[in-house]
Amino acid sequence: MKMGRVIGSVVATRKDPSLEGVKLLVVENLTLDLKAEGGYVVAVDAVGAGSKEVVLYASGSSARQTSTTKDRPVDAVIMAILDSFEAHGKTVRLA
Amino acid sequence: MKMGRVIGSVVATRKDPSLEGVKLLVVENLTLDLKAEGGYVVAVDAVGAGSKEVVLYASGSSARQTSTTKDRPVDAVIMAILDSFEAHGKTVRLA
Amino acid sequence: MKMGRVIGSVVATRKDPSLEGVKLLVVENLTLDLKAEGGYVVAVDAVGAGSKEVVLYASGSSARQTSTTKDRPVDAVIMAILDSFEAHGKTVRLA
Amino acid sequence: MKMGRVIGSVVATRKDPSLEGVKLLVVENLTLDLKAEGGYVVAVDAVGAGSKEVVLYASGSSARQTSTTKDRPVDAVIMAILDSFEAHGKTVRLA
Amino acid sequence: MKMGRVIGSVVATRKDPSLEGVKLLVVENLTLDLKAEGGYVVAVDAVGAGSKEVVLYASGSSARQTSTTKDRPVDAVIMAILDSFEAHGKTVRLA
Repeated sequence: MKMGRVIGSVVATRKDPSLEGVKLLVVENLTLDLKAEGGYVVAVDAVGAGSKEVVLYASGSSARQTSTTKDRPVDAVIMAILDSFEAHGKTVRLA
Repeated sequence: MKMGRVIGSVVATRKDPSLEGVKLLVVENLTLDLKAEGGYVVAVDAVGAGSKEVVLYASGSSARQTSTTKDRPVDAVIMAILDSFEAHGKTVRLA
Repeated sequence: MKMGRVIGSVVATRKDPSLEGVKLLVVENLTLDLKAEGGYVVAVDAVGAGSKEVVLYASGSSARQTSTTKDRPVDAVIMAILDSFEAHGKTVRLA
Repeated sequence: MKMGRVIGSVVATRKDPSLEGVKLLVVENLTLDLKAEGGYVVAVDAVGAGSKEVVLYASGSSARQTSTTKDRPVDAVIMAILDSFEAHGKTVRLA
Repeated sequence: MKMGRVIGSVVATRKDPSLEGVKLLVVENLTLDLKAEGGYVVAVDAVGAGSKEVVLYASGSSARQTSTTKDRPVDAVIMAILDSFEAHGKTVRLA
């Protein structure tokens, strides 16, 4: 998984029928210093993530292992919203 | 998923039999400023995307989760055409 | 999928038994200007591609969705030989 | 698989229900000289890895092939803790 | 698949139980000039590859399609040892 920040969303009325009602968020990749890493992904929200929250997303077939995404043509899912993380002995609180 | 723009198509008469009738489009990757990111992908069109439209595509096994692509040897599918998106508080209308 | 050019082949007598009789080609990645992009892949040939032909290849589990590659330990397959493609309004004939 | 070093962990109370009780570690990628390669991944711990240990992690659908990760929306798993490795004729002991 | 050279191995006693008896080799990626490309992977050996041999490895779910790797949490497998390869009209013998 990668850490990312929710920075937006997309709207699409013409889409695969299985995507009806699925929320698609724009997530920018983050470094461990919470800086934008330079890339982004559009991911399905499976956990009710809000704007600017720091999340984890899973990619590939693993992105279809939630009840929201099962059997759908999606390759990225937000599966956790971070409360905090620790890296190199430093704890960062997010919630 | 990634955002891309449809910039062309490919024609192949010699191909795996399962690809008969499948439309293959050339999609260039876009940044969130709608600039070409520098890469491209050839993706199956599952939603009737037109030239120059901004689309979402899914990669990997997830690309086989539409009725158009099921069980076929394809690793990218256009599964949505964007009406608009919002990033960093700015909304961009596309349709 | 990515566009590539067949530039060679590999010979291996010591290999997984399921690969007996499978043709393995060296494919260099191409830009949309048909220039070498800088990387290569060794892919199974499922369509009878010849030397220097411009092809499409699929990667990952999708590479196992042809009769040639089913259930085999291969992660790239040539599934189409291009006749032509169009990009940014310019048509390029290849066959 | 890639070699990495465990450098931290993440805490998330809002997450996909299937992730309850799963330990998520921050792993930085290592070169063969055991230097940070510049990227990181958040991976499920399937083997009881401790802080600063050098581990192997598997990505993609393979990350779901342990009893800890089966059917869960996770795309990286720590599946081994290294005792030593040998590269270019030099042995490095880690445990 | 990618071409690589076996440059070492790893030893891990603490690991997922399904990895008992599996040989894990360090493979550096090769260019078509047989130069190190700058990356490496730790791959399961399914074909009895020896030190310094030039091999092909498959990644992702395809890495689990050998009898050695089936259902195991591994994302790369050596599935062939090269005798020779040809690229741009030049043949390179390896065995």
